[in-house]
Amino acid sequence: MRIALLGGTGDIGQGLALRFARDTDHEVLIGSRDPEKARDAVDTYEENLESRGADADVKGFANEMAADRADVVVLSVPPYYAGDTVEAVADNLDSDTILVTPAVGMQGDEDGLHYHPPGTGSVTELVAERAPDEVPVVGAFHNLAADALSNLDNELDLDTLLVADDDDAKETVRNLANEIEGLRALDVGPLANAAEVESVTPLVINIAKYNDDLHDVGVKFN
Amino acid sequence: MRIALLGGTGDIGQGLALRFARDTDHEVLIGSRDPEKARDAVDTYEENLESRGADADVKGFANEMAADRADVVVLSVPPYYAGDTVEAVADNLDSDTILVTPAVGMQGDEDGLHYHPPGTGSVTELVAERAPDEVPVVGAFHNLAADALSNLDNELDLDTLLVADDDDAKETVRNLANEIEGLRALDVGPLANAAEVESVTPLVINIAKYNDDLHDVGVKFN
Repeated sequence: MRIALLGGTGDIGQGLALRFARDTDHEVLIGSRDPEKARDAVDTYEENLESRGADADVKGFANEMAADRADVVVLSVPPYYAGDTVEAVADNLDSDTILVTPAVGMQGDEDGLHYHPPGTGSVTELVAERAPDEVPVVGAFHNLAADALSNLDNELDLDTLLVADDDDAKETVRNLANEIEGLRALDVGPLANAAEVESVTPLVINIAKYNDDLHDVGVKFN
Repeated sequence: MRIALLGGTGDIGQGLALRFARDTDHEVLIGSRDPEKARDAVDTYEENLESRGADADVKGFANEMAADRADVVVLSVPPYYAGDTVEAVADNLDSDTILVTPAVGMQGDEDGLHYHPPGTGSVTELVAERAPDEVPVVGAFHNLAADALSNLDNELDLDTLLVADDDDAKETVRNLANEIEGLRALDVGPLANAAEVESVTPLVINIAKYNDDLHDVGVKFN
């Protein structure tokens, strides 16, 4: 399977790229608006992976080309760009491409970060609204700390929560997520349940802010 | 210390009463609008605790009297009654009484439960608004499944999240929560951060709904 990480030079994109490349046999495509930047990121990721003896099957492209080649397209872009990025690659998506969205809208003040969803109720639902009708959308990887993912020395013991408008697509992403070592994917139903999933992202950041012994914190349900 | 559980005949009240009575040396006061109902609940709780060889220091009162005698007053009532219950016991609270609120506003549909806060932003903040100014307010115990608490055979391995408008009060509740076996209290800052904490309650219920192997699910941050 080919997994494209659009905005894959950013922090959550880097973390997912390194984990998918190290822990799975899938091909990882790094997308960026600037393909040169994507290829530079690939060099860094490959160096990191090879220093650990991991096979690095990572390539860099412009976002549109990465989306065009991929079976699963992860929108690892800031929330403000999620909708526009979907529209930029819309012609490269079809009913066989699964669109995955991990972005969360937040606003900060002196107290901490607060959940700040768009008018659609969640960034996940905004992505579904802006995507072509036939493209299945899965919300996933929302609550993972980028630094916890990017540091491959860090052994994960975390859950990631899935919402989707298509059961087959959700199952594919569930299997993909479960292939990452130490990550367990849990089902949280349809896209309408995305807000409560996204809202955990500012929460885990606030927990890290107020508890000295917890950094890059994630969540586990039991 | 004396801990009053107002609405302590309800499901979350029962769970907290049993755990505080079994795991700590504090005196547990069950409050209810109907003191007879409170005393009936105490009989059931004591029977449960004594059958396990636990010392049961539990007494039943009308809410007002329970609040009057307590150092810590837990509003274990449904969210719609939280504000009115605060006002009903307001004369029995003072600056030495810590008011603890675990209630969460939710609305359900066929997809699951959704976070539905009051206009103040959260039930926690609503309680603070309705409480006398000098009474410190702590949000805690929001995301614990009542059945997981009430079944004393169930070993907990869960976090509870604290927000508060007073640091000393927060520290007192943190110590109390940590006395419950298998429970760890984490700081999430001031009351303004309550919404993201409360929002985890519908989330854990949705997770239990969509994952057959997870019942009465709680949360742990790591």
